[in-house]
Amino acid sequence: MRGSVQHPSHSDPVEAVAPRPLRIALGVGYNGQGYQGWQSQSSGKTIQDKLEAALARFATEPISTVCAGRTDAGVHGLMQVVHFDTTVQRTPFSWVRGTNTFLPADIAVQWARPVPQAFHARASASARRYAYVLLQSPVRPSVDAGRVGWVFHPLDGDAMRQAAAYLLGEHDFTSFRAAACQSPTPVKTVRRIDITRRGSPHTEPGEDWSPCYWHFEFEANAFLHHMIRNIMGCLIAVGQGAQPADWMQEVLQARSRKVAAPTFSPDGLYFLGPVYDPTWGLPERTAAFDWLP
Amino acid sequence: MRGSVQHPSHSDPVEAVAPRPLRIALGVGYNGQGYQGWQSQSSGKTIQDKLEAALARFATEPISTVCAGRTDAGVHGLMQVVHFDTTVQRTPFSWVRGTNTFLPADIAVQWARPVPQAFHARASASARRYAYVLLQSPVRPSVDAGRVGWVFHPLDGDAMRQAAAYLLGEHDFTSFRAAACQSPTPVKTVRRIDITRRGSPHTEPGEDWSPCYWHFEFEANAFLHHMIRNIMGCLIAVGQGAQPADWMQEVLQARSRKVAAPTFSPDGLYFLGPVYDPTWGLPERTAAFDWLP
Repeated sequence: MRGSVQHPSHSDPVEAVAPRPLRIALGVGYNGQGYQGWQSQSSGKTIQDKLEAALARFATEPISTVCAGRTDAGVHGLMQVVHFDTTVQRTPFSWVRGTNTFLPADIAVQWARPVPQAFHARASASARRYAYVLLQSPVRPSVDAGRVGWVFHPLDGDAMRQAAAYLLGEHDFTSFRAAACQSPTPVKTVRRIDITRRGSPHTEPGEDWSPCYWHFEFEANAFLHHMIRNIMGCLIAVGQGAQPADWMQEVLQARSRKVAAPTFSPDGLYFLGPVYDPTWGLPERTAAFDWLP
Repeated sequence: MRGSVQHPSHSDPVEAVAPRPLRIALGVGYNGQGYQGWQSQSSGKTIQDKLEAALARFATEPISTVCAGRTDAGVHGLMQVVHFDTTVQRTPFSWVRGTNTFLPADIAVQWARPVPQAFHARASASARRYAYVLLQSPVRPSVDAGRVGWVFHPLDGDAMRQAAAYLLGEHDFTSFRAAACQSPTPVKTVRRIDITRRGSPHTEPGEDWSPCYWHFEFEANAFLHHMIRNIMGCLIAVGQGAQPADWMQEVLQARSRKVAAPTFSPDGLYFLGPVYDPTWGLPERTAAFDWLP
């Protein structure tokens, strides 16, 4: 049939019209250990570089993506969402399988959906969810090295929950903002910080003990650069008794990076995914992390 | 005080006696992704090589270890146990912390205990436990690449449990034995195979779906080389309907490697640890894997 298609004549008005681009949204999972973060760099060692190179190979045309939330070097993504425009027509699952063929083993497209041009992976997201997984143990991580943060000393969950409560709602988060942050405003709305503990009780080094894991889950309309890692540093200071719980309020009100604790390790940080209005019809599995430690 | 210690005279009988060696047992965790398995090789890229090098640096004397169960390339260890003899006196936690200083990030000593000379990490173990973690998903692993096995097609748990039941008890496991296996006998006793499913139900590719994880837990007095990976290949063949459950009995009775399914990937295999008599006084946390996917 292909050979029988007639070429339009020079006078055919169709010829002057560029192919109508299609907008596609993708869910993407990745292990950030081997990468210099999400955003494209000249080194090419970022998730965005790997994803765009794989999309270009599959689509055989250059493809630029826009993501819901850029992640730092070493930070993992369970359900990053990106959109891009293309003239190439493929079925959704063909985008998934075809692109994954050209991606490294630690990055994989999870789903693909055609979306209206009005959809924008960043601007359409009403909230973002992150999790931090923290190993509390006399011994540093091994099997899960690079995938969990680590504290030696036991943490006080109630003190951390009290401290976290000061951060809920709309605040100026300048104290938790990295110098390089490009956000137009330091005012963000934190909707939820859940702190739970998993695993056996901790006992003293030298005794029989079992490690435990702390799960921190964060939801906000948006986050500043390093905001969660800076909050984690402060929560751990409180959890270990170095600061009282209400110190978190002092830090918040100071609006100065100098008063907060050091930025904590990226190892245990997971972007769970953005939240979109259900009318976009995207998969709801943007925040599943049942299987984290 | 150190300077006041008197050197024994040449006639002192103590001087002729070699220092009495101490036997130490260690629990060790590791991510096998970057290594050529447990057993020492001339390449030096094995867990045993890394552990013995770290012990030698900490103890400032050569140290040879004996392990409870050698693991293949790519297989992980949650609680490998080794023993070694040394003339160096250190506290148990000092062995842990000091050795970990010299180990790569993906290997860590979990505990140390002085044990009687009668204790032998391999010979004293009455059983070994392994787990296999398998991702069932239309999309290959990404965040957990190298840490879980993967199947595309949904598995039938009941069929796999029926098939596994044929393997319980004492049998000749020649059909599941690698050619390179050094065990003096193919007869082993499998005490337990538990198969559980975690995570959301699977739906069709192209539809909204969530991956699920299958956990396989194995306990036997000992395992042959590749035995679990060969059993996994057969269980998956049954789980996907390529073979009926009672085919497992045929395979077992054939006592021929030729009839079994191909050896399955090492990625999702974890050595949970050996089982010892409680009178040895070792930590019981030899089989904790709460935190696996």
